Amino acid sequence: MVEKTNHFLSLKQVTIRDPFFSPVQNTVIHTMIPYQEKVLHDEIPDIRPSHVIRNYRIAAGEIEGTYYGRVFQDSDLAKWLEAVAYSLTVQPDAELEARADEIIDLIGRVQKPDGYLDTYFIVAEPEMRWKDLGDCHEMYCAGHMTEAAVAYYEATGKTKLLDICCRLCDHIDRRFGDEEGKVPGIPGHEEIELALMRLYRVTGEDRYRKLASYFIDKRGQDPDFFKKEADARGGDPNSYINRQLITYAQNHAPVREQDTAEGHAVRCMYLYTGAADIAAANQDETLMEACRKVWDNMTKRRMYITGGIGATHQGESFSTDYDLPNDSAYAETCAAVGVCFFARQMLEADPDRRYADVMERALYNGVLSGMQLDGKKFFYINQLEADPDACSTAYAYGSEEYTPERIGWYDCACCPPNLARLVTSIGSYTWSCGGNTIYSHLFLGGSADFDFAGGGIVKLEGNYPWDGTLTYTVSPKNPNATFTLAIRHPGWCHSMTVTVNGENVSKSTVNEKGYWELSRAWNPGDTVICRMDLPVRRIYANPLVRADAGCVALMRGPIVYAFEGIDNGEDLSALRIPRDAAIEALPFNADLLGGVVALKIAGRRLKPMDDLYSDYPPEEKEAVLQAIPYYAWCNRGRTHMKIWMQE
Amino acid sequence: MVEKTNHFLSLKQVTIRDPFFSPVQNTVIHTMIPYQEKVLHDEIPDIRPSHVIRNYRIAAGEIEGTYYGRVFQDSDLAKWLEAVAYSLTVQPDAELEARADEIIDLIGRVQKPDGYLDTYFIVAEPEMRWKDLGDCHEMYCAGHMTEAAVAYYEATGKTKLLDICCRLCDHIDRRFGDEEGKVPGIPGHEEIELALMRLYRVTGEDRYRKLASYFIDKRGQDPDFFKKEADARGGDPNSYINRQLITYAQNHAPVREQDTAEGHAVRCMYLYTGAADIAAANQDETLMEACRKVWDNMTKRRMYITGGIGATHQGESFSTDYDLPNDSAYAETCAAVGVCFFARQMLEADPDRRYADVMERALYNGVLSGMQLDGKKFFYINQLEADPDACSTAYAYGSEEYTPERIGWYDCACCPPNLARLVTSIGSYTWSCGGNTIYSHLFLGGSADFDFAGGGIVKLEGNYPWDGTLTYTVSPKNPNATFTLAIRHPGWCHSMTVTVNGENVSKSTVNEKGYWELSRAWNPGDTVICRMDLPVRRIYANPLVRADAGCVALMRGPIVYAFEGIDNGEDLSALRIPRDAAIEALPFNADLLGGVVALKIAGRRLKPMDDLYSDYPPEEKEAVLQAIPYYAWCNRGRTHMKIWMQE
Repeated sequence: MVEKTNHFLSLKQVTIRDPFFSPVQNTVIHTMIPYQEKVLHDEIPDIRPSHVIRNYRIAAGEIEGTYYGRVFQDSDLAKWLEAVAYSLTVQPDAELEARADEIIDLIGRVQKPDGYLDTYFIVAEPEMRWKDLGDCHEMYCAGHMTEAAVAYYEATGKTKLLDICCRLCDHIDRRFGDEEGKVPGIPGHEEIELALMRLYRVTGEDRYRKLASYFIDKRGQDPDFFKKEADARGGDPNSYINRQLITYAQNHAPVREQDTAEGHAVRCMYLYTGAADIAAANQDETLMEACRKVWDNMTKRRMYITGGIGATHQGESFSTDYDLPNDSAYAETCAAVGVCFFARQMLEADPDRRYADVMERALYNGVLSGMQLDGKKFFYINQLEADPDACSTAYAYGSEEYTPERIGWYDCACCPPNLARLVTSIGSYTWSCGGNTIYSHLFLGGSADFDFAGGGIVKLEGNYPWDGTLTYTVSPKNPNATFTLAIRHPGWCHSMTVTVNGENVSKSTVNEKGYWELSRAWNPGDTVICRMDLPVRRIYANPLVRADAGCVALMRGPIVYAFEGIDNGEDLSALRIPRDAAIEALPFNADLLGGVVALKIAGRRLKPMDDLYSDYPPEEKEAVLQAIPYYAWCNRGRTHMKIWMQE
Repeated sequence: MVEKTNHFLSLKQVTIRDPFFSPVQNTVIHTMIPYQEKVLHDEIPDIRPSHVIRNYRIAAGEIEGTYYGRVFQDSDLAKWLEAVAYSLTVQPDAELEARADEIIDLIGRVQKPDGYLDTYFIVAEPEMRWKDLGDCHEMYCAGHMTEAAVAYYEATGKTKLLDICCRLCDHIDRRFGDEEGKVPGIPGHEEIELALMRLYRVTGEDRYRKLASYFIDKRGQDPDFFKKEADARGGDPNSYINRQLITYAQNHAPVREQDTAEGHAVRCMYLYTGAADIAAANQDETLMEACRKVWDNMTKRRMYITGGIGATHQGESFSTDYDLPNDSAYAETCAAVGVCFFARQMLEADPDRRYADVMERALYNGVLSGMQLDGKKFFYINQLEADPDACSTAYAYGSEEYTPERIGWYDCACCPPNLARLVTSIGSYTWSCGGNTIYSHLFLGGSADFDFAGGGIVKLEGNYPWDGTLTYTVSPKNPNATFTLAIRHPGWCHSMTVTVNGENVSKSTVNEKGYWELSRAWNPGDTVICRMDLPVRRIYANPLVRADAGCVALMRGPIVYAFEGIDNGEDLSALRIPRDAAIEALPFNADLLGGVVALKIAGRRLKPMDDLYSDYPPEEKEAVLQAIPYYAWCNRGRTHMKIWMQE
């Protein structure tokens, strides 16, 4: 195994003081995490009890009762604990930590002597343990708890949950493998792979890396694995789920031979996040090449402008190339979160802005859209065009996740705690170090410690994404410290200038991967100022995207804009933005949607007709339109929404 | 009860000799009906056995076996028998009739002494008879068999099946009602209502009309009827289907209070076909007004340009107003067939071209698209935009009815025999008589008998829909027979002239309902020539239809055109038809798709981009495009297809 030459700075090495993101993080820390804690404890009156903590209590034998909830519900607690760990790192909170410790104690009481830990199978079906890897998520839950354990250890230094998870992963390691005395197996929902790599790094135990590698190597070797598993346990190999568990679970081909983003989008992201980590650790170029191919297919053919992925609710899956419907878009919040995970691993392996650009696209749009501004309600699905009535009839009919407004919790509640853990840990997605270079990937205000060239701090101040000026102040501990500050030139930015201590930097310093490589002897107080033009950009989709044909979307910096019925009337499909329409970025409005730059557009409105179809084109007239950032839509009540507008 | 003042001529009073429709009818008679007969007998090698006849044999105790297939599968045989009856009327066939008689004998052997007839419940669940009206289709199957019985009696004069169905309907009549000794009930899937009205007319037994009226009156009085029914039989009132059986089955409000087209589209059409018939028979203006409101809502807000209805596969249902997605369109073949049924009843009650226009729109587009030109394969779903790969992944994943090409049979095989019975009986949709007026609604060549003014024949010759000239030759038996020939001026036609014996008729003869009322003393050989301009028309959807915003469709006469990948390349979304594009109707091509007029368009093609999203609009260049009639699409192999093109 090889140490990565470039790695993201940890949460402890970074501070976030960002006009845009710090309030979001504070909402998560002060509202969302406490809210979710109450949900896990069934203490929110208007929300159907989640039963999560109760399941643990029952499993520990402390209360009577039967299991309630999805088979993978333990993971909701695990992800919340992970978010708590990051929260404690960012803003220590002794009371929260004490409550988390209590929960960890409870988890410890649930764990079986052999290391097994899964409340569903402990309470409801003990005889079925490990018999339905395809659909029963035991390794998925184990992976999430392991991520929480690593994070909690890193945050607090406490090893209790880490020990629990080592025992759990050792249990899994003893059970699964191709060696004598083990059984072959892979998880239906990937997650354990990336978690084992985190456990490996924090413990130094190589068996976790080897087990993670085993799951990657094994996957797709036998596409019918889950059917055979069903057969073996007396189930129906041709049941709906067992028929799907081929492509749906990325088991259609060996991972190294996969070159398209297929199946359940969250599974795919978790798989490739783990795979990219393992590829780098094992210097496995074949595996890394598969990661790159899947990335390229995903980002060039199967991703929404918001960074959302998984176009279809059928299997919560990727559809085919360029099939990106807007109104029935699935684009699960967790999948956009997963895009950030995958991008982060790819960036570590190869600091290329294309990964950071996509991470930023997902973060500021398809991830944040998943949460209400107040932190108390969530979208599971992030449609790009919404007709609330159609949503609650035609779509909701078949899939409870289609909701015309964010709601407080879901039966399948994977998304809310996923938001919490990403937002609280966002500091660990912003800066990376490789050799004598510190990379600035996301432009979040705050600071980063570096430990090469004698160490020091880089501070970033700005008002991104509303303003394009970034001020870096470099403070090496040693004078004339020689190293490189590499600043991303975002792919979306057509005009960016950089000065160091007031002197212009030549554009030739932008390397082939899109980073300004500022290599010099730095002294305390050296200042780098980046100025990015932030015009409103008219965005066109590839004409092969059927859903966006003839349409234009508006972006400014990384922000995708949306038109809401509340601002523009419900007839959004009757609005046009002619190619020569005047578009104005309004001044930052602190009173609108938590503070945003809205857009004012001199558009056109087509007049509704009496008939459904006519030989005559509809009449049109001028219409002043307003667009708001997509992530903030649906924070002023149930309304229509549209991103891709008729041009 | 009141005789209708206007009624369609029966199949025996009409002949069809039509260059367009006679070949279709011949395909149905000579290929589709024999093909379906073999399917019903499990004699088509490559098709999964339907088990339809086997179920009857098992139910009759003649062979051993268990029931196989959908609970409503008897209706497949019933609809096929009905089609056979029409086929025998149009083209007598002693051998086919003998085989139909054998099947009718078998049906007779299945019927229980109390009149009960339903192979599923006789074979599989005798104790559950009439306990799940919501989802078990016993009355639906009874209705279809009754329609077959009426048709077979009218075709052959044979009463055996009619007697069977009278016993069956009497059984239903004894069981259901609000009177002492009966139980209240309504069918989950309407059909019995319209069938009882047909039985009433042919038998003169008023109890059938009363029973039909009862079901209409009862419907929607208790929206929870089917939940309570589930509860009573020990089922789960909150199961998916029982929760849906409110709006889905048009039980959300009393029928007379319904004013939108809701729920399962086929159910809705069958309900309102029956309701309109009953409203006319009972002179029930309140009920007729509900029919008109539902019609208006459907045709002005919830119908595809093809006449297809039921936009969403969720519940095979109507969606909300203006929610008419093209690629995920459901638009079930049976639902478009049902539009013709409903339109026919509305036209009888009120000879207004708006009903005939819609009937024609559905017939030439959304109905005929359901059958392959060779009569051997069928679409269940009639999408208006097709990406075969997306169709077979994103859509097919959840609903087996989404197929990228027509297939030979469906597990739920309602559509194929529905096509067969409509096409064979199309003569009874073409002409109606009311008082001294004979109406020409559909322009199918052939002739019609009339019996007023001494009787006679009207002959129609033309080459519709490819040519706009219609020649009517009137042959009354008596000279100077005074009556009115009323010819529809189609709503789509902006320029139509009419001459009688060479003399121009004033446009003022077009009545307020859109018919040329040619009232005069007619003599044998009098000739009426109608000349309709048939330009290619650019059609625009109401801007409130989100899916069609910015798009244009092409029609010529009643024919909706489509662009196929095979002619234009698979990048159909990259094609544009600018508003000033030259569009040419090509000469009739007998060698293309069974003979069609194709269109040639001077369009534009956008160039695919490397990236998924770009700040720059795609480049475009000229492209010569070809459009073919929508009904004929997908007869040259798996291909992309699109109707609504970017303008």
